[in-house]
Amino acid sequence: MLEPDVLVGMSITGALTPAGLGMSCLIPLIENGFVDWAVSTGANLYHDTHFALGLQMFQGSAEADDVALHKAGVVRIYDIFFDYRVLLSTDAFFRQIARQEEFQHPMSTAEFHHRAGRYVAERERVLKLRSRSMLAAAHECAVPIYTSSPGDSSIGMNLALLEVEGYGLRLDPLADVNETAAIVYAAKAAGMKSAVFILGGGSPKNFVLQTEPQIQEVMGVAEKGHDYFLQVTDARPDTGGLSGATPSEAVSWGKIDPNRLPDSVVCYVDSTVALPLITAYALARRKPRPLRRLYDERETMMTRLRTAYERVRRKRLRRGES
Amino acid sequence: MLEPDVLVGMSITGALTPAGLGMSCLIPLIENGFVDWAVSTGANLYHDTHFALGLQMFQGSAEADDVALHKAGVVRIYDIFFDYRVLLSTDAFFRQIARQEEFQHPMSTAEFHHRAGRYVAERERVLKLRSRSMLAAAHECAVPIYTSSPGDSSIGMNLALLEVEGYGLRLDPLADVNETAAIVYAAKAAGMKSAVFILGGGSPKNFVLQTEPQIQEVMGVAEKGHDYFLQVTDARPDTGGLSGATPSEAVSWGKIDPNRLPDSVVCYVDSTVALPLITAYALARRKPRPLRRLYDERETMMTRLRTAYERVRRKRLRRGES
Amino acid sequence: MLEPDVLVGMSITGALTPAGLGMSCLIPLIENGFVDWAVSTGANLYHDTHFALGLQMFQGSAEADDVALHKAGVVRIYDIFFDYRVLLSTDAFFRQIARQEEFQHPMSTAEFHHRAGRYVAERERVLKLRSRSMLAAAHECAVPIYTSSPGDSSIGMNLALLEVEGYGLRLDPLADVNETAAIVYAAKAAGMKSAVFILGGGSPKNFVLQTEPQIQEVMGVAEKGHDYFLQVTDARPDTGGLSGATPSEAVSWGKIDPNRLPDSVVCYVDSTVALPLITAYALARRKPRPLRRLYDERETMMTRLRTAYERVRRKRLRRGES
Amino acid sequence: MLEPDVLVGMSITGALTPAGLGMSCLIPLIENGFVDWAVSTGANLYHDTHFALGLQMFQGSAEADDVALHKAGVVRIYDIFFDYRVLLSTDAFFRQIARQEEFQHPMSTAEFHHRAGRYVAERERVLKLRSRSMLAAAHECAVPIYTSSPGDSSIGMNLALLEVEGYGLRLDPLADVNETAAIVYAAKAAGMKSAVFILGGGSPKNFVLQTEPQIQEVMGVAEKGHDYFLQVTDARPDTGGLSGATPSEAVSWGKIDPNRLPDSVVCYVDSTVALPLITAYALARRKPRPLRRLYDERETMMTRLRTAYERVRRKRLRRGES
Repeated sequence: MLEPDVLVGMSITGALTPAGLGMSCLIPLIENGFVDWAVSTGANLYHDTHFALGLQMFQGSAEADDVALHKAGVVRIYDIFFDYRVLLSTDAFFRQIARQEEFQHPMSTAEFHHRAGRYVAERERVLKLRSRSMLAAAHECAVPIYTSSPGDSSIGMNLALLEVEGYGLRLDPLADVNETAAIVYAAKAAGMKSAVFILGGGSPKNFVLQTEPQIQEVMGVAEKGHDYFLQVTDARPDTGGLSGATPSEAVSWGKIDPNRLPDSVVCYVDSTVALPLITAYALARRKPRPLRRLYDERETMMTRLRTAYERVRRKRLRRGES
Repeated sequence: MLEPDVLVGMSITGALTPAGLGMSCLIPLIENGFVDWAVSTGANLYHDTHFALGLQMFQGSAEADDVALHKAGVVRIYDIFFDYRVLLSTDAFFRQIARQEEFQHPMSTAEFHHRAGRYVAERERVLKLRSRSMLAAAHECAVPIYTSSPGDSSIGMNLALLEVEGYGLRLDPLADVNETAAIVYAAKAAGMKSAVFILGGGSPKNFVLQTEPQIQEVMGVAEKGHDYFLQVTDARPDTGGLSGATPSEAVSWGKIDPNRLPDSVVCYVDSTVALPLITAYALARRKPRPLRRLYDERETMMTRLRTAYERVRRKRLRRGES
Repeated sequence: MLEPDVLVGMSITGALTPAGLGMSCLIPLIENGFVDWAVSTGANLYHDTHFALGLQMFQGSAEADDVALHKAGVVRIYDIFFDYRVLLSTDAFFRQIARQEEFQHPMSTAEFHHRAGRYVAERERVLKLRSRSMLAAAHECAVPIYTSSPGDSSIGMNLALLEVEGYGLRLDPLADVNETAAIVYAAKAAGMKSAVFILGGGSPKNFVLQTEPQIQEVMGVAEKGHDYFLQVTDARPDTGGLSGATPSEAVSWGKIDPNRLPDSVVCYVDSTVALPLITAYALARRKPRPLRRLYDERETMMTRLRTAYERVRRKRLRRGES
Repeated sequence: MLEPDVLVGMSITGALTPAGLGMSCLIPLIENGFVDWAVSTGANLYHDTHFALGLQMFQGSAEADDVALHKAGVVRIYDIFFDYRVLLSTDAFFRQIARQEEFQHPMSTAEFHHRAGRYVAERERVLKLRSRSMLAAAHECAVPIYTSSPGDSSIGMNLALLEVEGYGLRLDPLADVNETAAIVYAAKAAGMKSAVFILGGGSPKNFVLQTEPQIQEVMGVAEKGHDYFLQVTDARPDTGGLSGATPSEAVSWGKIDPNRLPDSVVCYVDSTVALPLITAYALARRKPRPLRRLYDERETMMTRLRTAYERVRRKRLRRGES
């Protein structure tokens, strides 16, 4: 799925950043052209930004006494510890940038992340940091990063406060639905294949996959489904939830092309074990791919999707459908 | 946590509806005043609406051949089967109602669900259905239902299509963040306790819990955390993700009042096993509680939160903070 | 599978006893004739005996400090706490009885448990205990109880010490293999059906199931496999281990009759949740079945199996097979 | 835990052999002196022997139709397929060797595996196989291999048939309990440290760990517990079972030295992912350790344990204890 003619969309959940493993393995994938677009929880992007601001996190024990930690002003994510002021500083950073004029309008989350990424990259340069954070890397590679639950995370919480303060920034989840469908449609219409690489499960998993039902079921535009499916998860099918739903189940929804099902893979293993192996493999065995810079193509791709839909809509209206 | 002075917020994930178990056990909790507000995935609300439209779902085998199902136009959610036209009809229903004048403005997801719930209830009456769907029950009890990932589900997908068609409906996830924080703040300010009842995990879990950090960490308003925590899940802490994060970890974030930690409970069991037992227990052992009808109080509660924040903001500005 | 013509073999793992839930729900199944033979870990039988000796266990918190517990002489099994002297007393009990003359020979574990059960029942009578322990109930109902790992548990450990002391008791796991196969063979030869009810997984699961391959694959006697399969477990198939192996996989081994596969059921739920529901169901909906008292039939059943094997063996020898 | 003064005992469960990953990664650990003694399920040893006999196994799909496989004479272990005759041939092999004179007496499972290993190694030489099976490697390195459930697996099943045929081989699980305790006691008495490396869970996990309670609780000989604990498993603590029990819980039993608890590690990851990483690490970063050849020391070690116990026993008898 790392061939030149494959579009790779990634979904990312889990406390990857604090472990220092996740993002540090994701960023080379972005910079080498192996991820073309992505859906992440806000939490991953928020906590990854701590590094760009020169703030620190520490490894501790998951067995620590949380009442004592709370009294001492220490916040815990499983076995990662950090000062409560790390949150306050990062909160203040996001509020400061989002009060700028360029943010005072409704936008997709990709636009928000792209605009924020420029400020994050600037901080990295000022602090002369060797490493790089996800938002900065995605900004510089023009990889669009969406979040399927825009209010759910400290980023969304701080933007919500600006709404209380009277600022004009709004996040438009419906624009996200359309932009992601447009990305997949443009690739398939150009004869490319579409791969989904799912780290974890949850809402981002479905958000990456639902691009195909959006095109087929909702818009009524003929399409066959994604071509490659690789998921790394601990969620099993038997709970009946989406996180553990198999690629086979996705075929019944039109999310995965039935002819490509034999190529789909689910690995029941922790992402922090799998991702370093996958990234090391990709970098060692595959040539970097030229960056597609899809963020810059959003308008063009949306126009293509709109045009395809207009043809269907006229037919639907003639048939009296809605 | 079902005492009269406890606010109960619920988060709901998982394919509960299709099994016929989930929502049929949730609705009595709503109608008897045991759930005051809720955060659900869109998928649960969407598939539950099939019943209100007189559409059918069937139990099958999770081992079925999905390529054959896809050819036959059958869609599968684990062991539940239904006709692809069930999706198309429900899609058309949501598009038809959302083209009405009353939907043509930005709104919180609670407002969208409340307005949609009136149409769903109307369909139930027309079809003379004995059972009731979640959106209809929540509408009639004025229980606000939020979704933390508004674009992620067939409801969001169909609303996104209306955006392409030029309609004015927008969903505002930042409004959701503020309204849910306002619900918790109003209850705590009135001397009540706050309980969170988490079915599953995922983004809705955090969205219910983050109301406290929104008040304390982001707004800077003094508060101590939720008072009761009951989670039913299969997610374990060791993966480091939010779904399996313990109430103890939540204490370190200020999400749970440290003094109330001993009362928090996590049940590692399937929701479709636990919920019928919990609902049967609640109905058998507890008197119904008067409906709080919090949907109708949203403006009042938001005003209270805004006023509390204005006091903090003036202090912050005097100190030169942002 | 509770019809009169069904032989029910049960396998039992997990810390059921300490929770007070497990055995108290198993014993009515034994006394009402719903379990004909069983394979248990030694640990379940050992800890259940604490109750018969009037010793106490307490519910505590799984988060307790184990170094402090160890210093205080408290032993922990997840959330169950008990005094280290509970172990010492129960150890002494098993050593005392096993030094009696009647134990000084090699025997199957069923024989050991049956002989020990008489002493356990006697203690219950002396202490005038209302409740009953597993070994006592099985003794009185002549239900043979095997353990697939006879050295692995405090019972085995204490018997091992008697070997050091020079006593003559030996446990014969090969006799267990033959006796369990004889039980299943006798039932099937008499036209009955065979059900396996698996609580947990592990070695006892396979030991119950392997009775069929012992008859078919190893002895070469024609048979079709068990007829009913009900497992309650948290082990998933994807790990490739036996605990999570599906009834379908068991078909490929001849463990389950392929024609009966649609009747097999796996419940992914904690045994302490499932067993009370199952026992309550069985007692409420089914008439007690007459006790088969299979322990008393061991010799007869072994003779029947031996005879069947002799016919095969003669054929094998004629064909020069081994 | 790979320092020269550390005794390493390993427990092994799970379908490691068929994947070709497990044993091929274990054998270098044995040959380089990194494993001093082990407890394995019989199944791992049995299926690993297929390779030594020149029999083949194939990778297939876990979704295959098992009724069809059964009809075609194909046996499945998750995603590994092999001909039913592979079982029959391996069964015949174990029966042939176990009818030899040298096997006609009661013995520990270590003795059985050691004697069988010589025949397995002989077959490998005859077939000029490059790779090596576990029993052959352990034989040549004199690493004692125990099984905690001697009747549970095709090896035990075939030996049980020989009992029916009148042969004199008996397996003595109580001897296994004493020999394993003697191994740990001898090392600790010589000032060494004891490490347990647990692949999977189940009965072998407890059998490795219970060596310490056997010394302390049952024999009454002063000892402090194992010094290192490394487990690779998917079993979580909350089920209350032994497989998922934490090293911390083991401290409360005296299984683990409380002072060494901070060095204990549990990895929630599939053994087939973890073991190749661990073996590669050990071989790359550590010098081979001289083979201890503990199988040859069994008598000496048993004598040492017996002597220690005799001192305690005399005291106990003087105090009137049993």
